[in-house]
Amino acid sequence: MSATPVAFEDWFAARARHVETVLDQALPEASLVPPVLHQAMRYATLGGGKRVRAVLVYAAGEASLPPETPVSAQEIALDQAAAAVELVHAYSLVHDDLPCMDGDTLRRGQPTVHVRFGEAVALLVGDALQPLAFDLLSQMPVAPALIAQATQILARAAGSQGMAGGQAIDCTSVGRTLTSEELQVMHAMKTGAMLEASVLLGGVVAGASSTVRQGLEDYAAAIGLAFQVVDDILDVTADTATLGKTAGKDAVVDKPTYVSVLGVTRSRELLESLRAQAHDALRPLGSASHRLAEVADFIVGRDH
Amino acid sequence: MSATPVAFEDWFAARARHVETVLDQALPEASLVPPVLHQAMRYATLGGGKRVRAVLVYAAGEASLPPETPVSAQEIALDQAAAAVELVHAYSLVHDDLPCMDGDTLRRGQPTVHVRFGEAVALLVGDALQPLAFDLLSQMPVAPALIAQATQILARAAGSQGMAGGQAIDCTSVGRTLTSEELQVMHAMKTGAMLEASVLLGGVVAGASSTVRQGLEDYAAAIGLAFQVVDDILDVTADTATLGKTAGKDAVVDKPTYVSVLGVTRSRELLESLRAQAHDALRPLGSASHRLAEVADFIVGRDH
Repeated sequence: MSATPVAFEDWFAARARHVETVLDQALPEASLVPPVLHQAMRYATLGGGKRVRAVLVYAAGEASLPPETPVSAQEIALDQAAAAVELVHAYSLVHDDLPCMDGDTLRRGQPTVHVRFGEAVALLVGDALQPLAFDLLSQMPVAPALIAQATQILARAAGSQGMAGGQAIDCTSVGRTLTSEELQVMHAMKTGAMLEASVLLGGVVAGASSTVRQGLEDYAAAIGLAFQVVDDILDVTADTATLGKTAGKDAVVDKPTYVSVLGVTRSRELLESLRAQAHDALRPLGSASHRLAEVADFIVGRDH
Repeated sequence: MSATPVAFEDWFAARARHVETVLDQALPEASLVPPVLHQAMRYATLGGGKRVRAVLVYAAGEASLPPETPVSAQEIALDQAAAAVELVHAYSLVHDDLPCMDGDTLRRGQPTVHVRFGEAVALLVGDALQPLAFDLLSQMPVAPALIAQATQILARAAGSQGMAGGQAIDCTSVGRTLTSEELQVMHAMKTGAMLEASVLLGGVVAGASSTVRQGLEDYAAAIGLAFQVVDDILDVTADTATLGKTAGKDAVVDKPTYVSVLGVTRSRELLESLRAQAHDALRPLGSASHRLAEVADFIVGRDH
């Protein structure tokens, strides 16, 4: 439709900026009772992060909309779905940083929420961001049946057989070596489930056909895994300033990572094969999925 | 319809037992990966508690069903809504008991989840029980529009302007005296919001008319407040063995309570006026609401 193609970096940055304004409007005002909680929720959510999950929602939505669909209602719904996955991601970071978990004091170069607001408030920030995500989904201007589907997708991705479950495997495995398979299960749950949910939510909200949904699922599985492999590589190859969080932390506490199990070289080989899998999965979706393909390249490219 | 009226105590006990079986089926098997998390989720949720919130869902559903409605689908939906509110309640207890919050070691006469499974797992138990509640709502065999409404009711009751917000006021007010009004706001959020949501969910799922919904809202506001006043009275008048949790704890840490603000006598007077308000609110609902009236009496009667 547009005469001049928008470069990927500009498209990505525009989407990331856009979801920031959606989140800003979705989060309660900092002055509302109780102000300390609302200030902390905004601190935890706004002004940082790559917004990869939100961008995946938008890219999958773009890939799934039937041609010539009037997009206004879907655009609002995609905004709400994109904000919802970012809220769940933000809550998970706040809880992961707590002293009883990773005990991180720095996130995106800033003091973590519990350092800034105290542990009790940090706990409640996570507890409150999660239902706000479901509240947003319930407001989407799409068929109610799609709201119910979206709710189920997000709930399962966040739950004990998704993100929270992966986190539980992670924190109960410190000090022992996981097999490559155990590691894959852990990351598929801990990081992959929410990335996959982001892709599926974009598809569901945009009314994806079952063929498109299958392609999205295969794509999402590949990039979910790729994302964690890159994170593990960066943990040993990047420095704290570049990461915006404490580098080398996983190795110090003897946490299992792809690098500790496979080494850097074989981890990078795995990454390339996952990139190829992601591109293959998108083939049935045609040219509308080109942003998803670019997001896969971006995720893999974070390593360089 | 039934020839012999079922005594309130028997009706209540049967509903409490029933939601226990619903929860048992809704919670993932303890053997599923990660087993420690699923064991702890089951430990946190099953085998205890009065199930007042679940019973409110059922009683409100009974009061709201149009006469002669075939009830099979609604019964399943009420089960799922009842289990959902119990899951959110269970998660809130696990997080409230954490060392960074109340630091309780005993709950229903048993070691709290973090004492038994460690803090990290307890954190994740709460994080995983919450989305399971939304997952259950998404499965209800009712019109999808009702699922969306139910999701919004639960999300708002659990969020920063509901339960989590009330908790934040509570934990940031330790050591200073709240006014009676501040106390009322805190409790309306912390305890009232979820009790009110339980009543409304029962109504929504059963297809309550707007008149009935209004009556349910007024009823719920009164019993929500009554519930907390009773809790505060019990904290100073009952002993640890009766409570199943540490008695006198609020006074020790100088937590604001109705008793510390109003004293026991005026707290009991407030309780009686709330009971009357609850009964008045049910008048437009007629005889179908008799279980709700009995639940109000039960809540107030816990004091004796």
